[in-house]
Amino acid sequence: MAKMPLGEQTLYIGIDGGGTKCRASIMTADLQVLGTGVGGPANPFQGVQQAKDSIRTAAELALIDAGLPPSAMTELIAGAGLAGVNVPSLYEVMSAWEHPFKEMHLTTDLHIACLGAHNRDEGAVMICGTGSCGYSYVGDKSLFIGGHGFPIGDKGSGAWMGLEAIQAILLASDDLGPKTSLSESIGEFLQASGVMIVDRMFGAKQGDYAKFAIFVVDAADAGDAVAVSIAKEGAAYMSAVARKLWATQPGRMSIIGGLAPRLIPWMEQDMANNLSPALYQPEFGAVYFAKQRFKLANNNQSVLTTAI
Amino acid sequence: MAKMPLGEQTLYIGIDGGGTKCRASIMTADLQVLGTGVGGPANPFQGVQQAKDSIRTAAELALIDAGLPPSAMTELIAGAGLAGVNVPSLYEVMSAWEHPFKEMHLTTDLHIACLGAHNRDEGAVMICGTGSCGYSYVGDKSLFIGGHGFPIGDKGSGAWMGLEAIQAILLASDDLGPKTSLSESIGEFLQASGVMIVDRMFGAKQGDYAKFAIFVVDAADAGDAVAVSIAKEGAAYMSAVARKLWATQPGRMSIIGGLAPRLIPWMEQDMANNLSPALYQPEFGAVYFAKQRFKLANNNQSVLTTAI
Repeated sequence: MAKMPLGEQTLYIGIDGGGTKCRASIMTADLQVLGTGVGGPANPFQGVQQAKDSIRTAAELALIDAGLPPSAMTELIAGAGLAGVNVPSLYEVMSAWEHPFKEMHLTTDLHIACLGAHNRDEGAVMICGTGSCGYSYVGDKSLFIGGHGFPIGDKGSGAWMGLEAIQAILLASDDLGPKTSLSESIGEFLQASGVMIVDRMFGAKQGDYAKFAIFVVDAADAGDAVAVSIAKEGAAYMSAVARKLWATQPGRMSIIGGLAPRLIPWMEQDMANNLSPALYQPEFGAVYFAKQRFKLANNNQSVLTTAI
Repeated sequence: MAKMPLGEQTLYIGIDGGGTKCRASIMTADLQVLGTGVGGPANPFQGVQQAKDSIRTAAELALIDAGLPPSAMTELIAGAGLAGVNVPSLYEVMSAWEHPFKEMHLTTDLHIACLGAHNRDEGAVMICGTGSCGYSYVGDKSLFIGGHGFPIGDKGSGAWMGLEAIQAILLASDDLGPKTSLSESIGEFLQASGVMIVDRMFGAKQGDYAKFAIFVVDAADAGDAVAVSIAKEGAAYMSAVARKLWATQPGRMSIIGGLAPRLIPWMEQDMANNLSPALYQPEFGAVYFAKQRFKLANNNQSVLTTAI
């Protein structure tokens, strides 16, 4: 099939905005990736302006990567899946943004992750990275579990593990909790011990806590009792989330996010066995979503004929 | 004994700066209170500028209450006990402040609470209010326990209880944790339920979480299993802190703070039995401290002849 010149095609940008970073990929309608950019945190719960800045940065870098001029920004049909916009007020604030794109279709990071993971409308997905949550979409019904953010929710996530680890280290430093190798590993990372750890944590955010998660799973694998307890509690929560999602009969269920591969071995075996690999990254799910919405708005059936 | 006219006396201001409010009392050398003022939060861990503003506001209001002119501020010898300054960097930042007083002698809120509670140098004190911590001073040795701040420490405190409560409500709303009456009581207070609670907690600080503690202890007293579990875990921590402090043989041990009267019934009986009432409020301890330091600096023995 002869290809259309780029200038004549509708171009999409799939945006996956999480608590640590924002990835944006510019794609053709048949999902050829032309360029990708990465910006900073884009969870509006942590900062609305920061989220907008991170999306814009990621899009600008994706344009450069694609060899497209800055002026092409206003021609892009954006699909954006952002953490935090399951909170109604944040959805409204981000929807009201005077974004730099031709159109922006906004949904949750969970929704685009699910669309991408299964390359179809129905499925279930869990995220276990900086934050944690679960989502299923079956028979026009969606189910959100968790995703309440740090520190009130997101059990099992990297930020949750990091906070649990710091709490355990401080209890141990007061001799009010069991000794743990995390005092050494995280202490060395922070170049601090005891009350100086409090000093280092001054103003720490979700993403700062999430950096400690790798030390927790490493220590858990090595048998440290405190770390094992944290890993087991986190994995038990994610197993309970999986069980709720599986009950909706999603057909396929995946877990994604930086911490996921390390948490799966601690999950309950039957739920771990129900997991399937994610087929595509969330940015593809974001473009899948944008194409659906663009088609609805323009009543242009041809846009959807290329399945992702 | 004939009284000196106020204008000829050295006047002191005792400042007790915590995470929710800052109390300041202007006193004569023989501890007659001339006036008291209350300002906002004064824990520099939560905000250095806010702490400075709150101290200044409390001092200005204390001057008005005392019927003294604003110009008298520069003549006051201040003793300030602030939460958070056990963290070295915050002690330095607050010490470097160009404060409005003639002198300012800075120490921790724990130290002034202990001096005030026992009207002498030696003793032990626990605070259980917005934050939690323990302190003893025996034989020139001080022991700090906890006081690491929210959310990494301060177990058993109001803020910790509030966070535990919100986490429990959200787990229950996802049907991933037991039902609790806190969903109704705190939900009514916030005029929200389920995911809307996340919305309401947007940007919530330590003091905001601490407002939920009263609902937790009320529900615990009424037998709500989730609230009982939170109250017991918090009280077990404070009992462990008490045990460590009592081991230093402080002679007297007190617990102060807004949540203390409600937590004591949940503490281990032997430690609850070791508690003595606090004799004076922390502001008196702050003036006790300021008088010691003023005397050291001026080698003026007479200042100390009036014991507090």
